[in-house]
Amino acid sequence: TKVIKMLGAGSRLPALLQKSIIHKTFYYRTIGMSKMAKKICIVGSGNWGSAIARIVGANVKANPNLFHPDVKMWVMEEIIHGEKLTHIINTKHENVRYLPGKKIPDNVIAVPDIVDAAQDADYLIIVVPHQFISSSCLPLKGKLKPGVKGISLVKGFCLNPDGGIKLISKIVNELLDIPMSVLMGANIANEVASEMFCETTIGCSDSDEKSKMFLKKLFCTPNFRVTVVDDTTTVELCGALKNIVACGAGFVDGLQLGDNTKAAVIRLGLMEMIRFTEIFFSNKNSSMSTFLESCGIADLITTCYGGRNRRVSEAFVKTNKPLIELEKEMLGGQKLQGPETAAEVNFMLKQKDMEDKFPLFTSVHQICTGKKLVLQFIDDLRNHPEHMIHADVHL
Amino acid sequence: TKVIKMLGAGSRLPALLQKSIIHKTFYYRTIGMSKMAKKICIVGSGNWGSAIARIVGANVKANPNLFHPDVKMWVMEEIIHGEKLTHIINTKHENVRYLPGKKIPDNVIAVPDIVDAAQDADYLIIVVPHQFISSSCLPLKGKLKPGVKGISLVKGFCLNPDGGIKLISKIVNELLDIPMSVLMGANIANEVASEMFCETTIGCSDSDEKSKMFLKKLFCTPNFRVTVVDDTTTVELCGALKNIVACGAGFVDGLQLGDNTKAAVIRLGLMEMIRFTEIFFSNKNSSMSTFLESCGIADLITTCYGGRNRRVSEAFVKTNKPLIELEKEMLGGQKLQGPETAAEVNFMLKQKDMEDKFPLFTSVHQICTGKKLVLQFIDDLRNHPEHMIHADVHL
Repeated sequence: TKVIKMLGAGSRLPALLQKSIIHKTFYYRTIGMSKMAKKICIVGSGNWGSAIARIVGANVKANPNLFHPDVKMWVMEEIIHGEKLTHIINTKHENVRYLPGKKIPDNVIAVPDIVDAAQDADYLIIVVPHQFISSSCLPLKGKLKPGVKGISLVKGFCLNPDGGIKLISKIVNELLDIPMSVLMGANIANEVASEMFCETTIGCSDSDEKSKMFLKKLFCTPNFRVTVVDDTTTVELCGALKNIVACGAGFVDGLQLGDNTKAAVIRLGLMEMIRFTEIFFSNKNSSMSTFLESCGIADLITTCYGGRNRRVSEAFVKTNKPLIELEKEMLGGQKLQGPETAAEVNFMLKQKDMEDKFPLFTSVHQICTGKKLVLQFIDDLRNHPEHMIHADVHL
Repeated sequence: TKVIKMLGAGSRLPALLQKSIIHKTFYYRTIGMSKMAKKICIVGSGNWGSAIARIVGANVKANPNLFHPDVKMWVMEEIIHGEKLTHIINTKHENVRYLPGKKIPDNVIAVPDIVDAAQDADYLIIVVPHQFISSSCLPLKGKLKPGVKGISLVKGFCLNPDGGIKLISKIVNELLDIPMSVLMGANIANEVASEMFCETTIGCSDSDEKSKMFLKKLFCTPNFRVTVVDDTTTVELCGALKNIVACGAGFVDGLQLGDNTKAAVIRLGLMEMIRFTEIFFSNKNSSMSTFLESCGIADLITTCYGGRNRRVSEAFVKTNKPLIELEKEMLGGQKLQGPETAAEVNFMLKQKDMEDKFPLFTSVHQICTGKKLVLQFIDDLRNHPEHMIHADVHL
């Protein structure tokens, strides 16, 4: 209880700490800042990056023995009404473009150059859109301090040059040669920024318990409850695969098939997520219990009841318009991840001749690409491998 | 595939079969009915019983080698507009009182006396309201054929005389001395009756695979997908415990806490369901994977998004009226199971001094009984044991 009460307790620190950077630096010099204090850099400043900056900024303040008080945040420079976004963030302490109305702690400092932001950091929090992951991180190659570690908050995945899925954490790991953890969960950014209670899952395969505790101190607050597991790969995969299931849930909503059917589709989707992970991404840390964490069922549920993939898929059924058109109409520049993920997953399933073992993933892909009518979706699930257990016993 | 195509294929049988009982009996005599054919009796004829009678009636017709063609259904006699309900069912083939607008196959025969209905049966499908389970079954004591088996479709539980939960299947088993299976899942009766696609879970601890296949043949159709597991106890417990979680989900809706919070509450509820089962009801068949079946997460999801426990709990927050009053206003005679289950579960937790290990179950109970304000609900979850892993590691 004591540990938890300490977390996010920035407001209980001396008032001095709440003032300017000069005051803060003075404060830490005075009390003799721990040499162990780690410098944190947030790489990215969109909706989710800004929401997480609120948490990280406060936790860093609250734990001066663990963290250097200043958090640098890389901001891709934009001009908003004639003013630089970095300047707005550093003076008004608000990301007016991507998280309007919410204050960012004043110890979070917006920096327009990614190398300036990251080169003296001990820990990188990667939170850029998945399509820019390689291009964003490339300038950091060879510029980082020795021993730096990272955590990816990026949902989605990238394409392997040879086809199939490549995990974001793996891309960063290979590009920058740093060990990567991941953070995923049922975390709609605006709700997190509004300090509504939720949970998240950190996957950290570092065998040192202190690394796990370090991450917990960095992210956990009374409203943002962190569980740390070893199974990094499953945590990250859940965040990508759920979007395929959300398309299926959207089809069910569009076809008005009711609550029973929707629950069945979500469950069968979860079972395919589990099997897919087992077949293509299992390692010594793999555990079915990871699917019971926030990154698993909780994120799947919110994505299948709220979420843009569900919403657009429902409209796809009701309007008969092509997905690309609906994406433009409904998402205002955001990408629809479900169909893209379904295509890449299908590529992998085809290579192993396993499409029929994953009828939901396969059917979503075929429907999204116009190879099949959405009316056939449920028919494709009737002989699901999940239903075939005991089916071969003859009486 | 072949097996599945056969299931529920009543309509493909000779037209003769679709006519009257006399014709059917003649038909079976002619083709020489298998001596192995089992007589099925449905004990109960409410909304769910009538929906299941549609499935069982059709499957029995479709599998004359396995099942006797006539299914007796015990109907608690009522007079509807001057006519006996049994007479209406046997002539109009519709339960106009509890499942209006849906035909019941004509080989399902309504019988007003429970002993008449059940005494020559080989298999009993128990589907009476849980509060009447003992009084309904008592007349059958000592009247059944040797070797008869049963399956309970009754969600909920009964009270132990010494306090705590007693499973319905256990009550029937002890009362009638017959082995019991259970069937539970995300199965809203009216949607099942409308042949909307869904899944269900049968728990059957009979080690003979043929028993499992028998149940699959009896219940599985192209729209009602059956999975059979050994873990009878967990299947049945899920159907009771989910209602506590649904109250919590309703509180979140009433407090308008958003999607992240609701997903967190559902997940934490599931974790408490798992721990509770582990601590109080584990046996050699217990398996965490049972929670991933339809009886587990799927039923939990529908109950927490639809469902009367959620609905009344939401109204409880929004109106400030007592639960008993809302139950009367909103449920038209139906009982609210969540608060009752929470009370019994709390009795068991208290006995083991484990209330603090189950903060969600405990808080729901305290809120339902007026011992705590609903505003404290989320506070009670902040230090959930699920979040405490790694919390005791010091840096």
